[in-house]
Amino acid sequence: MNGPLSLVRTAVRRFLREHRPEAVTVAVSGGADSLALAAVTAGLVPARAVVVDHGLQEGSAEVAEAAARTCRELGLAAEVRRVDVTGSGGPEAAARRARYAALRPEGGLVLLGHTRDDQAETVLLGLGRGSGPRSIAGMRPLDPPWGRPLLEVSRATTAAACAELGLEPWRDPHNDDPRYTRVRLRKEVLPLLEDVLQGGVADALARTAAQLREDNDALDELAEAFDGDCCAVAEVEHLPAALRRRVLRRWLLAERVPELSDSHLRRVDALVGEWRGQGGVWLPGGFVARRAHGRLRVEPVQS
Amino acid sequence: MNGPLSLVRTAVRRFLREHRPEAVTVAVSGGADSLALAAVTAGLVPARAVVVDHGLQEGSAEVAEAAARTCRELGLAAEVRRVDVTGSGGPEAAARRARYAALRPEGGLVLLGHTRDDQAETVLLGLGRGSGPRSIAGMRPLDPPWGRPLLEVSRATTAAACAELGLEPWRDPHNDDPRYTRVRLRKEVLPLLEDVLQGGVADALARTAAQLREDNDALDELAEAFDGDCCAVAEVEHLPAALRRRVLRRWLLAERVPELSDSHLRRVDALVGEWRGQGGVWLPGGFVARRAHGRLRVEPVQS
Repeated sequence: MNGPLSLVRTAVRRFLREHRPEAVTVAVSGGADSLALAAVTAGLVPARAVVVDHGLQEGSAEVAEAAARTCRELGLAAEVRRVDVTGSGGPEAAARRARYAALRPEGGLVLLGHTRDDQAETVLLGLGRGSGPRSIAGMRPLDPPWGRPLLEVSRATTAAACAELGLEPWRDPHNDDPRYTRVRLRKEVLPLLEDVLQGGVADALARTAAQLREDNDALDELAEAFDGDCCAVAEVEHLPAALRRRVLRRWLLAERVPELSDSHLRRVDALVGEWRGQGGVWLPGGFVARRAHGRLRVEPVQS
Repeated sequence: MNGPLSLVRTAVRRFLREHRPEAVTVAVSGGADSLALAAVTAGLVPARAVVVDHGLQEGSAEVAEAAARTCRELGLAAEVRRVDVTGSGGPEAAARRARYAALRPEGGLVLLGHTRDDQAETVLLGLGRGSGPRSIAGMRPLDPPWGRPLLEVSRATTAAACAELGLEPWRDPHNDDPRYTRVRLRKEVLPLLEDVLQGGVADALARTAAQLREDNDALDELAEAFDGDCCAVAEVEHLPAALRRRVLRRWLLAERVPELSDSHLRRVDALVGEWRGQGGVWLPGGFVARRAHGRLRVEPVQS
């Protein structure tokens, strides 16, 4: 049995078996991804559903109520949480912040319906922004309190699973609005890439993201395990550059230097790796990093 | 002075200063990238030019001769090398193989005209194939005997530099032929991505590639430095997964297991990380890897 519903069920069952959450909440928008997730989860463990009403579109309260009703018919306790979407960073970011705040549970995990296609879009977005390995490594399957059991399932599969169950998912008109970058990636860039590279792109992006996440995690773990004196040039200069920068990053964050960009970090690292007697490196938050007598130090700028 | 010619010159000068090759050959196709590279290099160090004639298009001998003539006018000793393009893997791969074989020098470095745009295309190609961090890390600036001084210079800059010098680059009709995947990435996918993500994509892709390369190099370096017994489960099981897989990969390659795919490697790694008494893992080349009594071993399959 490899029908769509069974693919979704296998993914959710594997996730629950691996992570064994003590309590399970499913975040439901009413769209195909979260509805398929809710239906399958209801058949596997006791769970509740939370529907967030962002109040951004006319009729959003009715859409949220309908989704909650569907969840109850699937056997889940379901509630609607109305949030206020305000704040900086554009409407998408503000809505995401409000949603995550409303969903944060008292305990256990909140399952999110992100699919392999969402992952592919996230990776492309990160790539296009050039903000480094961390951003193109995509979303994690487990990032407590969040869990994403469907990251290897395609959006087409969740839609087909809903059809198999006779569920009618809500189609968010925002998902077709080309003013959103993500919508254009989904509807224009990814289909073109699929055509040019002859298929398999979403899967390839998701697989690459998983491998990059492991590489990044390994280096983070090794940086955390570094037990030398990270201010002593002699103890850090022989580390591979990517590991040394992570060690220095941990040190600077521990010294309360905020908002450290890659280019700041590289300039501090140059005090070790490209030393030619240069002066201090100015850092955000009014700090300066210097090297003297074979040691690094960071301190507030004297005013 | 930040005109295009001066940008190219700065990049080449920095490259030569950093790597100090004992002899310099410039690989010239006659296109804008390699012509700009040849012109600038001629003004900085004694160098020679090699033009490869692939013999794949009508008039290729004349194009090659014209490029060699231009190089001589720029003050470089120049020769044409005619190659036979044959073999497996499609015409692009065969041409690349023949070209690299013809260019391989007796000593010193061969400078190649790859730009930031070539790098962006390479990263996208690697991403779309999903063949892992190694493939999306793109081309290296220094990969002896090859050197790529222009990886941070855009193609528009090399074209403008040629115009500034009054050089007329050859336009390879293959560069406009949509039967080539790379051409479609260049002419369709990247412009669309630039539009959707509001610019800076080639730069972002190249920057990300550089960071991924450093992460990958650091993990390779740490795997090489591992001095434990890599067949003893107790000595490798506590390594971060991405490092452990690299240690196991080195071991398997040393044992002469060929063509190791990521999925093979993960199955061998599962003998350490997800041990539940499973049987041997079949590997290419007629090998099998097993775990017994807390040790890994790999051996030819008994026939």
